[in-house]
Amino acid sequence: MADNDSPAETGATLGKGRMEGFSDGVMGFAITLLVINIAVRPPGSPAEQFFHAWPSYLAYLVSFLTIGGAWIAHHGLTDQLGRVDSILLRLNLVFLLGIAFLPFPTSLVVEALHKSTAWERLAAVVYGLTLLVIRLLFSAMGEYARRKDLRRPGVDDPDLDEAHKKFRYAVAAYVLTILVGLLVPTVAIFLYFAVAVYLFVPFRTVYQAIIGKTE
Amino acid sequence: MADNDSPAETGATLGKGRMEGFSDGVMGFAITLLVINIAVRPPGSPAEQFFHAWPSYLAYLVSFLTIGGAWIAHHGLTDQLGRVDSILLRLNLVFLLGIAFLPFPTSLVVEALHKSTAWERLAAVVYGLTLLVIRLLFSAMGEYARRKDLRRPGVDDPDLDEAHKKFRYAVAAYVLTILVGLLVPTVAIFLYFAVAVYLFVPFRTVYQAIIGKTE
Amino acid sequence: MADNDSPAETGATLGKGRMEGFSDGVMGFAITLLVINIAVRPPGSPAEQFFHAWPSYLAYLVSFLTIGGAWIAHHGLTDQLGRVDSILLRLNLVFLLGIAFLPFPTSLVVEALHKSTAWERLAAVVYGLTLLVIRLLFSAMGEYARRKDLRRPGVDDPDLDEAHKKFRYAVAAYVLTILVGLLVPTVAIFLYFAVAVYLFVPFRTVYQAIIGKTE
Amino acid sequence: MADNDSPAETGATLGKGRMEGFSDGVMGFAITLLVINIAVRPPGSPAEQFFHAWPSYLAYLVSFLTIGGAWIAHHGLTDQLGRVDSILLRLNLVFLLGIAFLPFPTSLVVEALHKSTAWERLAAVVYGLTLLVIRLLFSAMGEYARRKDLRRPGVDDPDLDEAHKKFRYAVAAYVLTILVGLLVPTVAIFLYFAVAVYLFVPFRTVYQAIIGKTE
Repeated sequence: MADNDSPAETGATLGKGRMEGFSDGVMGFAITLLVINIAVRPPGSPAEQFFHAWPSYLAYLVSFLTIGGAWIAHHGLTDQLGRVDSILLRLNLVFLLGIAFLPFPTSLVVEALHKSTAWERLAAVVYGLTLLVIRLLFSAMGEYARRKDLRRPGVDDPDLDEAHKKFRYAVAAYVLTILVGLLVPTVAIFLYFAVAVYLFVPFRTVYQAIIGKTE
Repeated sequence: MADNDSPAETGATLGKGRMEGFSDGVMGFAITLLVINIAVRPPGSPAEQFFHAWPSYLAYLVSFLTIGGAWIAHHGLTDQLGRVDSILLRLNLVFLLGIAFLPFPTSLVVEALHKSTAWERLAAVVYGLTLLVIRLLFSAMGEYARRKDLRRPGVDDPDLDEAHKKFRYAVAAYVLTILVGLLVPTVAIFLYFAVAVYLFVPFRTVYQAIIGKTE
Repeated sequence: MADNDSPAETGATLGKGRMEGFSDGVMGFAITLLVINIAVRPPGSPAEQFFHAWPSYLAYLVSFLTIGGAWIAHHGLTDQLGRVDSILLRLNLVFLLGIAFLPFPTSLVVEALHKSTAWERLAAVVYGLTLLVIRLLFSAMGEYARRKDLRRPGVDDPDLDEAHKKFRYAVAAYVLTILVGLLVPTVAIFLYFAVAVYLFVPFRTVYQAIIGKTE
Repeated sequence: MADNDSPAETGATLGKGRMEGFSDGVMGFAITLLVINIAVRPPGSPAEQFFHAWPSYLAYLVSFLTIGGAWIAHHGLTDQLGRVDSILLRLNLVFLLGIAFLPFPTSLVVEALHKSTAWERLAAVVYGLTLLVIRLLFSAMGEYARRKDLRRPGVDDPDLDEAHKKFRYAVAAYVLTILVGLLVPTVAIFLYFAVAVYLFVPFRTVYQAIIGKTE
């Protein structure tokens, strides 16, 4: 756990293992806590109520894939790290603040789709801004680690490179979808879903797997 | 934590330790969150209300044993793994999505048993489908690991073999119980309980322990 | 994580590290989830409402100390283990079922103290039975590990011995308090608190620390 | 996990790794559970309701930074530890009790800002006392580890020294803010925020980073 520490260095080096453990804990709880937003409600027959709750399921899926994708990316980032300093530790906590906050905008989306267009507009924008901020905070962590030379030498991961490339498109997609959300909020929810799937599925690896099979 | 990584390989290999930690977190949280579905409600004397809440206790038990059994099986599967690739990591997240979702159908069952037969029918089917999907997703993970040769050579576990054999019966049992649920939903709940106990108890090991004792 | 496995042995040996991690997760969630039972309620001035919620605080404290004490004892038990077999893994899950269930009887106690003596009686008995069952399940785990020779040789812990001795008194105290709970339930809550403190405080170590200081 | 144990010593030495894991779990769960206190409520347009919920966001932020800061400090403390004894293990649990309790006073603050000045006064005082107690319990742990010589020799961390220095000011600031809370409770909430930021941001390191850049 504390094996990665090198406290002999001048104070700025702290354990990477425990940062990973704590981050996994927060992301794991946040991803599991999402389920309490799902509920059926009158009117209608049981089956009607169950299917009319589709916005709950969709929002659950988007937030689950977003946190899941963030966990994979976080995993990739910390794998590259040789050491952790006290500022990265705080940046990581602020990133986790975004993750832990996500159940709230998720509940806003779920509620909104039962209320009015004005609520949908608000929910789509707040949800999109949260996703965007999580994305930017994660980039800030990666950028800080790169600048301060915290990464282990010679560690290159094509998957991570793909992730970094993807994320640039994702930021653009989030900004666009937030604007769409102001006009046609329901469409925005489906666009967030598309972005979440885009970030989650490792197209390059899947493509290689298919190529590999046909060879 | 990150000791299992071999990032020198071409990008597809990621840490197994952290996948285990995150999975344990999500399964541990989901299993603990089940308790918030348990509640007594009027009418009746305190003791009557307490005993009339038996569907809560039964559903709690079934879901607890199901997640507990899934945890043991997951444990057995990852023990066999020599490495983890980026697709298995995603399959694992989708499997965890099923686990983390389980508190919702569990609450449907609890609610339904206080409402009407139509609700019971819906709840029994949705609950059974969730159990079935969790089961199939787990098999998909095992199958993928086998095909992509992610397992360590020479690792054979008779208990795991028993588990794999059991699961085939379990899938059949789930499909049958879902059909039963359409006709007599209350019976289905007890059948799910029977399947959960069947998957949880290691009959072969218990049998051997008894044989061992009488020798 | 998986370093403690010895899968070469015939199937009955599974990882101890992951059992510890999962158990810590469940106990950590259950202990933190207790806080959602605490709430102030009308009538009265803010300060009155705050102080009238004392049963919440007391029940929170008893359950927190109980789970905390169980965690320390669990820690001591697994420290002694050299290996884990598939039955101990299941016994451990059933023990965790008791721990994860505790927030429900805790909420019963909190509610009861705002309702009637009949509710208090029910809550005191259910709460006591849960504490007793947790205690017995833990002993069953220790007993099983002893009989199946799962412990590492030469590991003796005076603190653990004290814990085992204490627990015998605790079982007697729980049975007595449950009987008291049938007659004067409010007194029973305070007795549960006394038992929790008794199990939590390491009197022998504290005594030695004081002796050591005066020498 | 259990590698740090030295059970050969006379009973008082228990595993540090598992104490870290359990503490991370409780702190990670408490920090994530804070989100369920955030909610919008009528009256007003969607945007009005969203912005009128600012006390939720502020209290969320203060509690998040407080637990986050406590986690970093806890991390620094256990990094220094060479071993853990049974009393430190209990002190740690009592410290975690304070952390796990924090969501309750946080919800009091959120509720109070929608109710009356009398509620705000109560909430500001209870919240401040909880923050103060958490702070003092942490100091008690550090003090105990120092006195009982549980720390590894030669481990000095300038960041930790800064943290210890800061905390002395923090205790004074908490006491003052509690007194302010009795008079003008809303101001107290902002002061708690200022203290949380003060404890969270590593000014010395940030200052050095800026100096280092301009050189």
